[in-house]
Amino acid sequence: MDIIDRRRSIRKYTADPVDMKDIEAIIRAGMNAPSARNQQPWQFIVITDRATLDKIPAYHPNAGMVRQAPAAILVCADLSLVQSEGFWIQDCAAATENMLLEITARGLGGVWTGIYPREERVNGLQKLFGLPDSIVPFSLVPLGHPAEEKPPKNEFKRDRIHLNKW
Amino acid sequence: MDIIDRRRSIRKYTADPVDMKDIEAIIRAGMNAPSARNQQPWQFIVITDRATLDKIPAYHPNAGMVRQAPAAILVCADLSLVQSEGFWIQDCAAATENMLLEITARGLGGVWTGIYPREERVNGLQKLFGLPDSIVPFSLVPLGHPAEEKPPKNEFKRDRIHLNKW
Repeated sequence: MDIIDRRRSIRKYTADPVDMKDIEAIIRAGMNAPSARNQQPWQFIVITDRATLDKIPAYHPNAGMVRQAPAAILVCADLSLVQSEGFWIQDCAAATENMLLEITARGLGGVWTGIYPREERVNGLQKLFGLPDSIVPFSLVPLGHPAEEKPPKNEFKRDRIHLNKW
Repeated sequence: MDIIDRRRSIRKYTADPVDMKDIEAIIRAGMNAPSARNQQPWQFIVITDRATLDKIPAYHPNAGMVRQAPAAILVCADLSLVQSEGFWIQDCAAATENMLLEITARGLGGVWTGIYPREERVNGLQKLFGLPDSIVPFSLVPLGHPAEEKPPKNEFKRDRIHLNKW
């Protein structure tokens, strides 16, 4: 699928804001991800407030690009919704990947910055956003209108494919 | 994105085999998933051998549908490739989700059955496929030509979206 290959980590954005309709569609894509027992163990914090965006890198060293991003989406696990112990990490990852594909499909650019399981990032962002203990910051996706271009991804490696046995 | 909503868990398949070209394209989609530091910590076992498919449910109680499936793809983590400690689960989940979207885009049907972190499933499938300790079975995706139809997914929940704070 063309969109899968065209999804690249975009870390530079123009100053244009992202339409809230696009942000909703991106989160909708996340919410339509598969999850264990369809538990949907997620919550989403949309960040468009400049002062709040600028505070994030103090708690998340890999998220410096939010200083230039007009928006970011914080994907959180909601542990109170977990029904299938041990699978919420995978569920939130599938939601994050869907969001990145929807971002790409809309001509926008974004990047997956990992939070969980880095404790200092989790604790710092819980504090910054006033999250209860049951809400675990999982990934942060800064996004905007792309100000960089990258060729489609092409990581196919035949030697990673095995037939019927190792 | 239409394909994201149309991806549903398809557990019934016709007897038709899946073309190996489709299987390669599906794995290619998995390999083009994002990963922490682009570590790509994955290996893929394509299972088309009937006797092997039929042995899987003994080790994976949620994978009974492989008895009717013409093929399955076992996504494994390769711990020897990990460069960013703690993120391989998310990487393998993103790859699995990309594969399911590619399956949908090709008019095929598949389902994500979780393996890791269930120890008995991990150990059983390591034994069945002769995997070394560093190769961890992560998810199994049975697939085929769909013999069931489901409406598009529609799980949007506005109350899971928060603006700038909890």
